[in-house]
Amino acid sequence: MRTHKILKIVFILMFILSINSIKAQEKQNQSTTKDELMVRISEIEILPAYLEEYNTILKEEAAASVKIEPGVIAIFPMFIKENPTQIRIIEIYKNKHSYQSHLTTPHFKHYKTATLKMVKNLKLIDMNSLDTEMMKVIFKKFSGK
Amino acid sequence: MRTHKILKIVFILMFILSINSIKAQEKQNQSTTKDELMVRISEIEILPAYLEEYNTILKEEAAASVKIEPGVIAIFPMFIKENPTQIRIIEIYKNKHSYQSHLTTPHFKHYKTATLKMVKNLKLIDMNSLDTEMMKVIFKKFSGK
Repeated sequence: MRTHKILKIVFILMFILSINSIKAQEKQNQSTTKDELMVRISEIEILPAYLEEYNTILKEEAAASVKIEPGVIAIFPMFIKENPTQIRIIEIYKNKHSYQSHLTTPHFKHYKTATLKMVKNLKLIDMNSLDTEMMKVIFKKFSGK
Repeated sequence: MRTHKILKIVFILMFILSINSIKAQEKQNQSTTKDELMVRISEIEILPAYLEEYNTILKEEAAASVKIEPGVIAIFPMFIKENPTQIRIIEIYKNKHSYQSHLTTPHFKHYKTATLKMVKNLKLIDMNSLDTEMMKVIFKKFSGK
């Protein structure tokens, strides 16, 4: 009878612990996949012969991503004024899941395949925003709303 | 009498040429100062001992610039995740005049003076946007409007 009581307490404790563990796990998942923006700078060097063609394909891919995918906040392509083969893209995704999903879209796959031979160098740099709240003010301002 | 006629023609030609030259100059000024966005990536390396202090000052300066100055479209500070002393700032000004005016503001002057000793390396890279129209869509999307 006594052993039975102890076992019951042990089971209840294990149950409480497992619930707390699940809650902690959920919270962690939320903060890493749900709330955390993914910010990146892609540094890409293009072979000069392909530059015009590459820029057209990139422009289309960036426009399609921003228009179609809710998880793509920004894909903002630029090039260095004094060296136009040096492309820089600021990419902002809602979370890691949005980025993974972006990789499976037809427009991204087309971009990746079509430009493979045009890319001389590629460096993907993971960034952190210094002030995420401020980002919203910036974007709101530029949209003129 | 003949010399007088020739001189008259020369003066008329000079007048036409000078008018055209003024018009061309005006057109150039418009495209460089009125319509052309100024986009830049600042690459800044901070001395590790000052990093926290520097980030606070930069955050305040960026926020003040975007809030107060109509010509500052974006000052978006980030740092490399794996190397937080490597700061990257995307700066977008309405035109060159807005940038010149930004340099004279009290918040920029304070930032510049206060952080001078904290900066190990500074590289200002002039950029061109690949698709300015798309920028508006991106910013509009992120502002949630």
